Amino acid sequence: MDIKIVEVGPRDGLQNISTFIPFDLKVSFVEKLLRAGLKDLEVGAFVSPKWVPQMRDSLEICKKFKGTMALVPNQRGMDQYLESGLKNVAFFTAVSDTFNVKNTNKTFLQSLETYKPLIGQANLDKSKIRMYISTAFYCPFDGRISSKKVFETVEKLLEFEIDEFSFGDTIGRATPNEVVELVKGLEKILPIEKINMHFHDTYGMALCNAAKAIELGIKSFDTSASGLGGCPYAPGASGNLATEDLVYFCENQGIDTGVNLDLLVEATLRIDAFLSRISSSKVNQLIRGQV
Amino acid sequence: MDIKIVEVGPRDGLQNISTFIPFDLKVSFVEKLLRAGLKDLEVGAFVSPKWVPQMRDSLEICKKFKGTMALVPNQRGMDQYLESGLKNVAFFTAVSDTFNVKNTNKTFLQSLETYKPLIGQANLDKSKIRMYISTAFYCPFDGRISSKKVFETVEKLLEFEIDEFSFGDTIGRATPNEVVELVKGLEKILPIEKINMHFHDTYGMALCNAAKAIELGIKSFDTSASGLGGCPYAPGASGNLATEDLVYFCENQGIDTGVNLDLLVEATLRIDAFLSRISSSKVNQLIRGQV
Repeated sequence: MDIKIVEVGPRDGLQNISTFIPFDLKVSFVEKLLRAGLKDLEVGAFVSPKWVPQMRDSLEICKKFKGTMALVPNQRGMDQYLESGLKNVAFFTAVSDTFNVKNTNKTFLQSLETYKPLIGQANLDKSKIRMYISTAFYCPFDGRISSKKVFETVEKLLEFEIDEFSFGDTIGRATPNEVVELVKGLEKILPIEKINMHFHDTYGMALCNAAKAIELGIKSFDTSASGLGGCPYAPGASGNLATEDLVYFCENQGIDTGVNLDLLVEATLRIDAFLSRISSSKVNQLIRGQV
Repeated sequence: MDIKIVEVGPRDGLQNISTFIPFDLKVSFVEKLLRAGLKDLEVGAFVSPKWVPQMRDSLEICKKFKGTMALVPNQRGMDQYLESGLKNVAFFTAVSDTFNVKNTNKTFLQSLETYKPLIGQANLDKSKIRMYISTAFYCPFDGRISSKKVFETVEKLLEFEIDEFSFGDTIGRATPNEVVELVKGLEKILPIEKINMHFHDTYGMALCNAAKAIELGIKSFDTSASGLGGCPYAPGASGNLATEDLVYFCENQGIDTGVNLDLLVEATLRIDAFLSRISSSKVNQLIRGQV
């Protein structure tokens, strides 16, 4: 594989969908994604079911798929994570403190205090650790986030044993020039294999941004099958870069992703139908039409 | 302006839509596109109304907008073009002869015979001449088209006074590597300012391809407002690169297009509503939601 695709559809893609997706359908979705060749999947979040009801069966899902990753926001979540038997944990913070406070009621520095013991526990458990760095380009409240501020955020995390940093264009507003600026700076403070890019396709720029990051040597990307992550027709609520789009883009240019596109599209049929959802990926729509 | 956007929505975008769009709506569409800053527009085709009924009012449209461009397939069309008073004529051919024969009942060389006198008339009329070179990457019947074959096609046209060549990814299958190969070769046989790229967004690759062409120095692109040119949910029938997507991409990176994005979106509201059509441009959808 030339690039690693981290399929975040079962978590980032589903978490904001209000219709509860039955356990069996989630399990079948993950099974089919695995069968399509996606080896790195985030399948759950150990968050309060009061706040994110869609993730209320994460423990059961994770127990079925031990090679996957899950999101942990606090000690309570960490306890469930350790019970699940997973070996890949993801924590979440953001460059913008307005965003941090609105989302987690903590500033970045306060979230570090929370994570410090959790990272210790994950290290002891020999889990791989991912840190989401949200609003790495734009914040819905504060607007443009300077790259300098992202670098400062990363620098404060360098004392921890973190295996991967996932930099999110949370509201999908970035364009390639901004990706160049951020990635070139990040490469000076992080080994390139620790950098993952997480683009949302709100303005349709996600694939162009990923293309530019690939040119710069980035080898790890978050995507979601069928572009799950919000209704593509609800302004401001678009999903992740669609896995199909990145796979098509790569495979047609000799960049190996290890993913079988037909099986990937097949994996999305039931869940899109259940959600009465039109895939936001044109590649998906086309392959679907041919199946 | 750093790049020139040729708005082909009123012609390429509308020609295959079976619902006839009333004359007044077409006129208002073109007027609003002009107001948005689009100075280069293709607004009609002097083709048989039997074959392309949507274009049956092209003469009246062209007479109203003398600064625009229209497509001419034959002498009969040329006569109408000359009557219209336009000074920008477009001819059409394809690299793939299978495609040429299926579309125009002529091989490339036979189409040259047709165009020879028409080009002469256009030269006498001091019209600017555009030549569409369709299937420059893929043919729906013959598959991948080699760049070498495109270069040979262009070379046979070099004896004519042609102002612009528009290279079409007719079925929207190309990826940036293929754009690099084609453009680098074209730049050896054509002045760069005569090269225009015409990407369809069938597989969602159009913007990535345009981005790569911009990097290579190409300064002229065909796009269609709202991504008109086919129902985005009908497999295989996707439209041109959406004008909004290219404008957003450029303007956010300091590349001047001369186009006002809000006015552009405003120009698409009535025609999309008339066609009960969801814009295939995410940028358009978002701006629309904010308006």
